[in-house]
Amino acid sequence: MSLDLTLLHFPLDPASRQVRLALGEKRLPFTEEAVRYWERPAALVKLNPSGLTPVLVVAGGREPLVLCESRAILDHLEETHPEPPLLGRDPAERAEARRLLQWFDRKFDYEVGGFLLHEKMEKRLLGLGAPDLGAMRAGREALRAHLVYVETLLSGRDWLAGRRLSMADFAAAAHLSVIDYFGDVPWRDFPAVKTWYMKLKSRPCFRPLLADRWPGLAPAQHYDDLDF
Amino acid sequence: MSLDLTLLHFPLDPASRQVRLALGEKRLPFTEEAVRYWERPAALVKLNPSGLTPVLVVAGGREPLVLCESRAILDHLEETHPEPPLLGRDPAERAEARRLLQWFDRKFDYEVGGFLLHEKMEKRLLGLGAPDLGAMRAGREALRAHLVYVETLLSGRDWLAGRRLSMADFAAAAHLSVIDYFGDVPWRDFPAVKTWYMKLKSRPCFRPLLADRWPGLAPAQHYDDLDF
Repeated sequence: MSLDLTLLHFPLDPASRQVRLALGEKRLPFTEEAVRYWERPAALVKLNPSGLTPVLVVAGGREPLVLCESRAILDHLEETHPEPPLLGRDPAERAEARRLLQWFDRKFDYEVGGFLLHEKMEKRLLGLGAPDLGAMRAGREALRAHLVYVETLLSGRDWLAGRRLSMADFAAAAHLSVIDYFGDVPWRDFPAVKTWYMKLKSRPCFRPLLADRWPGLAPAQHYDDLDF
Repeated sequence: MSLDLTLLHFPLDPASRQVRLALGEKRLPFTEEAVRYWERPAALVKLNPSGLTPVLVVAGGREPLVLCESRAILDHLEETHPEPPLLGRDPAERAEARRLLQWFDRKFDYEVGGFLLHEKMEKRLLGLGAPDLGAMRAGREALRAHLVYVETLLSGRDWLAGRRLSMADFAAAAHLSVIDYFGDVPWRDFPAVKTWYMKLKSRPCFRPLLADRWPGLAPAQHYDDLDF
């Protein structure tokens, strides 16, 4: 079956990155189109009225299938391309992978990304001025609390949800990698997290993320270093 | 197969309400345990380290299966009790149901619930003082913008995602019903949304939600009225 996949995404959007990692891991080639979502481009809003990335367009059938929002895309990929499975093989594994997936998309995104990425990235893209130091501090403190939890999990597990790589790892890595682009992850204090992130960084699916650059936003020096 | 389901939830939490509606629609009896999540009760945090509701405990197997976070629970229910299907029967239906499910959990929750429910409910529960009028206004304006979109969708469809009732309807109704508890939904300006909500309110799965009351928080007079 010949699939024709086009992903509308923003390179530094954690939700978009999750989808790119999943597509890469499942070895599904796709065309990518980077969009400036904050300018509400017509092509994006027409496909997804929420105006948010990512959107995956699957051509090849009678009509193209338009998949909006990360979870809808991930669930569709899992249903149509089950190997390798990224959401676990039995109910307990799936429950754990989904719990952590939602942890990062709901709790981490709200408590950490909402501060750090808003201050360092969105304000820059939107021309809203310099980062607020109080907000940056709140985000960094929340990040440490989350890393303590992830460090505990990874001290007893190979991967975040257990014995197998899953979407939980990709969700965590997608969120952390954007924060790392701006140099705000205190890796050296969390050795198990750092080892896990090195393993992920070395996977072929991760390479395109390490090559991401956005005009006016330079990455931290160690960003694409596999041995950071 | 005899299942023993226990749901830890907060009656006015939209995520918890989605799960109660799905369990009701699939006719799965369950024991409910209301928790004061903002006090981080030990029983809740032990099951879900994020401290968030809902959590569903499935007993009956060798070990109980603990499902944390709404989407993990909904996906599990859909996999283990596929009838009636609440996420569509083909890829296009599923994509649309999931798009709208995430719309309400990501965009609506952030733009509307984050203001209205925080000001009117969370501040009350946490003893943080009176609602901020500017935040209430921002929430009400965002709510109107969302209702305009939902009105457009429902003018050409029986249900939110198309011809069949789905989790998209339950997600939308779960979020709107809590705002309606506090009397903030301008139903009369959105006739198609109102008709749709009347249909949902009349379903057996909705009855428990209409009976919800929380000490110190009285519902709007029309809250449990089927013909409001």
